[in-house]
Amino acid sequence: MKNVIVGQSGGPTAVINSSLLGVFKTARDRGADIVYGMVHGIKGLLDGKIVDLSKQIKNDLDMDLLKRTPSSFLGSCRYKLPDVEGYEEEYERIFKILNDLEIYAFFYIGGNDSMDTIQKLSDYGKSVNSPIRFMGVPKTIDNDLAVTDHTPGYGSAAKYIASTTKEIIRDGLVYDYPVVSVMEVMGRNAGWLTAAAALAKSEDCEGVDLICLPERVFDLDKFLARVGELCRAKGSAVIAVSEGVKIADGRYVCELADHVDYVDAFGHKQLTGTARFLAAKVAEKYGVKTRAIELSSLQRCASHITSRIDVTEAFNAGGAAVKAAFEGMSGQVITLKRISDDPYMCVTEPTDVRFIANVEKKVPDEWIDEDGMGVKEALVHYIRPLIQAEIAPLWVDGLPRHLILHEE
Amino acid sequence: MKNVIVGQSGGPTAVINSSLLGVFKTARDRGADIVYGMVHGIKGLLDGKIVDLSKQIKNDLDMDLLKRTPSSFLGSCRYKLPDVEGYEEEYERIFKILNDLEIYAFFYIGGNDSMDTIQKLSDYGKSVNSPIRFMGVPKTIDNDLAVTDHTPGYGSAAKYIASTTKEIIRDGLVYDYPVVSVMEVMGRNAGWLTAAAALAKSEDCEGVDLICLPERVFDLDKFLARVGELCRAKGSAVIAVSEGVKIADGRYVCELADHVDYVDAFGHKQLTGTARFLAAKVAEKYGVKTRAIELSSLQRCASHITSRIDVTEAFNAGGAAVKAAFEGMSGQVITLKRISDDPYMCVTEPTDVRFIANVEKKVPDEWIDEDGMGVKEALVHYIRPLIQAEIAPLWVDGLPRHLILHEE
Repeated sequence: MKNVIVGQSGGPTAVINSSLLGVFKTARDRGADIVYGMVHGIKGLLDGKIVDLSKQIKNDLDMDLLKRTPSSFLGSCRYKLPDVEGYEEEYERIFKILNDLEIYAFFYIGGNDSMDTIQKLSDYGKSVNSPIRFMGVPKTIDNDLAVTDHTPGYGSAAKYIASTTKEIIRDGLVYDYPVVSVMEVMGRNAGWLTAAAALAKSEDCEGVDLICLPERVFDLDKFLARVGELCRAKGSAVIAVSEGVKIADGRYVCELADHVDYVDAFGHKQLTGTARFLAAKVAEKYGVKTRAIELSSLQRCASHITSRIDVTEAFNAGGAAVKAAFEGMSGQVITLKRISDDPYMCVTEPTDVRFIANVEKKVPDEWIDEDGMGVKEALVHYIRPLIQAEIAPLWVDGLPRHLILHEE
Repeated sequence: MKNVIVGQSGGPTAVINSSLLGVFKTARDRGADIVYGMVHGIKGLLDGKIVDLSKQIKNDLDMDLLKRTPSSFLGSCRYKLPDVEGYEEEYERIFKILNDLEIYAFFYIGGNDSMDTIQKLSDYGKSVNSPIRFMGVPKTIDNDLAVTDHTPGYGSAAKYIASTTKEIIRDGLVYDYPVVSVMEVMGRNAGWLTAAAALAKSEDCEGVDLICLPERVFDLDKFLARVGELCRAKGSAVIAVSEGVKIADGRYVCELADHVDYVDAFGHKQLTGTARFLAAKVAEKYGVKTRAIELSSLQRCASHITSRIDVTEAFNAGGAAVKAAFEGMSGQVITLKRISDDPYMCVTEPTDVRFIANVEKKVPDEWIDEDGMGVKEALVHYIRPLIQAEIAPLWVDGLPRHLILHEE
């Protein structure tokens, strides 16, 4: 038997299921017997929650729906494997489960935390002479993975953000009195997503007035001064800020509010409220109408706007992982290598997981304006190809149709 | 000369420009010489800000772009005309401007506040024996206009809300631990928009668990008890609440937070924070992870998802207003009359503006669940036809293309 297993982990993207389809279809095409899916990632595997994917994805229509389904079809988890030392039992359990299922290759679709799982399983596998191959398939809207030119999931999120920004700009400039709109975009440490707001600027759009990324220290006084200038010069303004912007002493801007919204069950403070705080400051200082808009989870689950480039690359990353595993590779992650900018061309390339796991890639300093309140054309040039072309939803009775997991 | 003039007023919708196109195209087809546009509504007219629309909408491509452009192409205002008494001068000024422009008919696209403008101008016009015809074209995402079966703009907002709700549900149920997601939908007094979240429920979607409309008194204890039951029974839950829900003493739920976000330049308290407040309460009481998602202005400007039914009806409402005016009517608003439910068929009908101006239509009591935390099938049945069919954006370089006003 040549069975394979695939799981999805971490925060979802609009195209994480395209990668799942890439693994499923390529594995079957290359002769895999059963393609198992872990329900809720490695955590589900440990709990024995697995499904036979060919019973879930039954025909071409299901495949087309899967590509258009947001969130992780198999469910996700935020479980990080412990180091082997002292936890040998957990690893033995995982490998027993995999051996019982006659697994030939193991695929994990996730971000840099999930790639840590691939590294640990692959290392442990080698240490016990297991023949199972472990391959990582990258995904994250944050685009913060090392080595790879960009990550599947980013292009669609960027397309959603840029499209929405165009609409917010039209809406924000509609009145004959000044309105300052502040958009809050995801990105705790890296500003890739917020930078996508810069793409809105075009023949038919004024673009945003300021873009603040977490790569630069946020100076509230300088920010307010710039907004004041904008109000005087143009009346209304539209601003994009990253949820992760911090002031000089290291505190997040959203922590400056005199109240904390709430702390979740794990004691994590919710990192939202940046736009709200800034909008309040602007309203207070200049007496203008302000509006705070959080793109919140919509920017990662809006599968009704995806980039076809991104969908295709996500599929290819899944397929390339299978190809590499079937050719004998293990402990690798599929990365994307841009071989040409104009015309845009990009290929997949397996890379040793240890160059990727737990590493975070930020927006290069030279792509950010000197004053930290805008981005350079080179950054727009980098993102632009990633948002090209569309894949329309399959509309049923007025709404986009999805494929959902059925209990077996 | 047979010139006409058209303006847009109040909060925009995704299809308000389809109504503008309906007025423009029909007026030209019926022999109007110049179709003027007021920039920023009646306020702009008073300031002499007018454009010749045929210089803005030059060809078929422009028309197709205009239909897909969010926000008000001509700009909007929130200006309410004063009563004539004591302000005769203002009315004389308006009529002098209209007479100088040789205006034959005046069209105003807006909600119930804007219809008040039509009523006042029409009444004044009669009192001074002016031959100018004044016609209202309804628009509002809120769907709260009287007489009309529904308002242009509502169907597209409902389609966006229901589509987004499906995506939020997929995203909200992705983890193996409980997450309570609370969506906040627009609607200060009427729950039509929030009710659209009910449409998410379908073969491929679990639907939302609770829907709270402003038509019913909000009971925080009962709400928390229901959420507790949901968490115990299913783990995760997705909830839609209207921004306008109020507790028994008449305070908005968002006012219960121990801080006020901010007050705008006009002294209006911003009516947001309902989802945030409720999410915090749930997290505090049940120790679960929660997420607050505000659909904010996205729900009124998301022209990348529009209902073709809505686009067509919005166009037709504009066209019908011109037809009625050219046939001699004045002081009327075009309403929509549903003549059949299955198959859905709807016609336009002019209605005396005084039945519509300043009147607000709420969700009927019999369409809301007894406990006020859900809606009946009859309401879904009413909304469903309004979200049918699509009109795809014209994508240019990866983003939806719009038509924007050029200074003359």
